[in-house]
Amino acid sequence: MNNLIDILDLTESEIDALIDTANDIIKNPDNYAEKCKRKKLATLFFEPSTRTRLSFEAAMLELGGSVLGFSESSSSSASKGESVGDTVKVVSCYADIIAMRHPKEGAPMVASFKSDVPIINAGDGGHNHPTQTLTDLLTIKREKGRLDNLTVGFCGDLKFGRTVHSLINAMSRYKNIKFVLISPPELTLPDYIKQGVLAEKNIEYIETGDLESAMPSLDILYMTRVQRERFFNEADYIRLKDSYILNLDKLKNAKNDLCILHPLPRVNEISTDVDSDARACYFKQALNGKYIRMALILKLLGV
Amino acid sequence: MNNLIDILDLTESEIDALIDTANDIIKNPDNYAEKCKRKKLATLFFEPSTRTRLSFEAAMLELGGSVLGFSESSSSSASKGESVGDTVKVVSCYADIIAMRHPKEGAPMVASFKSDVPIINAGDGGHNHPTQTLTDLLTIKREKGRLDNLTVGFCGDLKFGRTVHSLINAMSRYKNIKFVLISPPELTLPDYIKQGVLAEKNIEYIETGDLESAMPSLDILYMTRVQRERFFNEADYIRLKDSYILNLDKLKNAKNDLCILHPLPRVNEISTDVDSDARACYFKQALNGKYIRMALILKLLGV
Amino acid sequence: MNNLIDILDLTESEIDALIDTANDIIKNPDNYAEKCKRKKLATLFFEPSTRTRLSFEAAMLELGGSVLGFSESSSSSASKGESVGDTVKVVSCYADIIAMRHPKEGAPMVASFKSDVPIINAGDGGHNHPTQTLTDLLTIKREKGRLDNLTVGFCGDLKFGRTVHSLINAMSRYKNIKFVLISPPELTLPDYIKQGVLAEKNIEYIETGDLESAMPSLDILYMTRVQRERFFNEADYIRLKDSYILNLDKLKNAKNDLCILHPLPRVNEISTDVDSDARACYFKQALNGKYIRMALILKLLGV
Repeated sequence: MNNLIDILDLTESEIDALIDTANDIIKNPDNYAEKCKRKKLATLFFEPSTRTRLSFEAAMLELGGSVLGFSESSSSSASKGESVGDTVKVVSCYADIIAMRHPKEGAPMVASFKSDVPIINAGDGGHNHPTQTLTDLLTIKREKGRLDNLTVGFCGDLKFGRTVHSLINAMSRYKNIKFVLISPPELTLPDYIKQGVLAEKNIEYIETGDLESAMPSLDILYMTRVQRERFFNEADYIRLKDSYILNLDKLKNAKNDLCILHPLPRVNEISTDVDSDARACYFKQALNGKYIRMALILKLLGV
Repeated sequence: MNNLIDILDLTESEIDALIDTANDIIKNPDNYAEKCKRKKLATLFFEPSTRTRLSFEAAMLELGGSVLGFSESSSSSASKGESVGDTVKVVSCYADIIAMRHPKEGAPMVASFKSDVPIINAGDGGHNHPTQTLTDLLTIKREKGRLDNLTVGFCGDLKFGRTVHSLINAMSRYKNIKFVLISPPELTLPDYIKQGVLAEKNIEYIETGDLESAMPSLDILYMTRVQRERFFNEADYIRLKDSYILNLDKLKNAKNDLCILHPLPRVNEISTDVDSDARACYFKQALNGKYIRMALILKLLGV
Repeated sequence: MNNLIDILDLTESEIDALIDTANDIIKNPDNYAEKCKRKKLATLFFEPSTRTRLSFEAAMLELGGSVLGFSESSSSSASKGESVGDTVKVVSCYADIIAMRHPKEGAPMVASFKSDVPIINAGDGGHNHPTQTLTDLLTIKREKGRLDNLTVGFCGDLKFGRTVHSLINAMSRYKNIKFVLISPPELTLPDYIKQGVLAEKNIEYIETGDLESAMPSLDILYMTRVQRERFFNEADYIRLKDSYILNLDKLKNAKNDLCILHPLPRVNEISTDVDSDARACYFKQALNGKYIRMALILKLLGV
């Protein structure tokens, strides 16, 4: 493997190896501080995403490498009509590995055909965002000690949420996973996923509109944002939105070892008073994102 | 102290210590070249300010550290509705110290409540800009050998000039300081400062509209820009603006050891023929800004 | 020499020395990996140019130095009305060398008068772009083994193409150079160049509109883009544009050792099926751009 375009490019054992490396980095950071000395990461962000970009940059810097790139396409040659293939062909001259974010689905894959250096998909439109999924998996593994035998709730916008689809795909490969799909009827998980991976792998799932009644069964609760613009009318939005805002009250019947995740940025879908609850793992998740990206860079560079 | 939000967060002895460190860095830069090895500075600039950002970045690089961040908010998650608190909470995962510039007053203080790493206010709206004030103090100390017993003139826009207010606050703590406040009537120092710190500390000051007659008494002349948009009518602006442009002619009666400062950028308020006069210290001031920021980073990181 | 503003600032022997250094870097990169340790490059890009900026940044990083700067003027103090002279005067405090791109012709030269550190012109409007020309010369030297005794074809927009004018000027200093100028009548080489350097140095040249008939004579083919907006009417553009698109068919009668160059970015003026032809040197050219900039930085810093 020389690129990471889709989370399913990775086998379970490859994911396990990445998680093991990330855990070792967390334990022994000094061992990794010079691993990528004289290596350069290019962050080609054709649309802005501070969090993801800074996570990649911090990852490379903590490996002793350096970083160059751009943070939005107005600063890039794309505005002069250059193809993504040509851009990465040229950037291959300047960097040893590329993390690419692009508003068009498939752009990182096209790029990988032309590039002379490894390409990491850092998000392509509503499609894939495999390093987010790796981040989620690392966090689940660290918090729960396992990736199998888990009841995983997804709450909010399950229709358009790219991170949800990707994590469902990834978790479906592990044993005895149950999904609880919590959303308004307008924003349920697409049929192609239910009739696809869930049916094929015979995975148990429940669909519900009620977060509180689902709460007691959950080992993991993955929150996402319910965006106003997804609703057909304002009245429905106002009626429904509070049901999908997590607060301490809604956590009353949750397990003590529930692990609450959120891909961030959050707007208001998790009340800030949850932040100091031990079950809130979304800031740890952000930190884990750096470590799994360090592991991934090491793997793709063959260091 | 773990943050620098307001210049008055620092005691006089802390300021003295920072100035001493900066002077030592200037003398022995080699001793500091690896002090922040493996440390990362995040520059979170929610509004652009090249000079301040590059000064912070150069400071961290000269300490052997590295830098990541963004230079305007369109590249940041703020455009997705994320709170400043969440942003710094996440950036705490990626960096060891944060320099934040924000158009809203108080944003860096709010950030400091959430951050796991030290926050430096790199300017918040018209409010505080403490590293500029530290820069001014270092420059005055280096040029005059002291921070007390000085007659300090401020010229131009004293009403809105954030750097003026901040330096008046900081200088008011030293002995035998006199202020000469030179401005058009529309742009005089606000009453809350005159009736506040100046009255409380019984500090001598003169208000005048005439730069040339004030000149002979000054040890320091701090120039600021008189912006057209501050005037109620164009006629007043045109009548007054030239009075507050410094040129060699207006320096005829100045002391030989006058120290001319300007926070930069300058537009036309100091004629370029002044640049080669030995009393022009504003480019030295820019250089000093790097050194005092190096000292501050060392202090906040506890290196 | 402390700056590089115009390719003609460099003598032939200085160019030879830069090419020799670049070739040595390519052979022995390890020898150069720490040459610029603790040195800082500022990339001041008042207009975006990803390729050029990343090439400079990669160059400095591969010399062990570090980089700061901005990638478009909205992030710079220029938006506050600061002069280019003041900007570089201040940036001189933060960096050891400056690469400047500016939409106004002559801005880098003005900057060089004020700067305390070397200035490299990274492109000023339609005027000069000397590091592109150095890149072209290094590529020609590496591919053909010489800079004299060559027949050099330029194809496309010879009227406005800055890189064409600059390379013609530079190549005109070598012995026995012939130029084949291939363009539509609307976009021929300006008279001031034909009656200038070409006449003065008595250099043989042919003007033609027909790429295919010119092909067999060429040692070098330098392609440029024919932009729709250069034409007075759409009909002419449509009639002519295909004549200046290079594809494998048009290469049938080319020499086996033809060297095809393009300053990039390309839009469609070279068909992608040419990319895998051994004579396509434009991606090598992009790589060479990094090495010649490394050589130039070393020279200007006196390392």
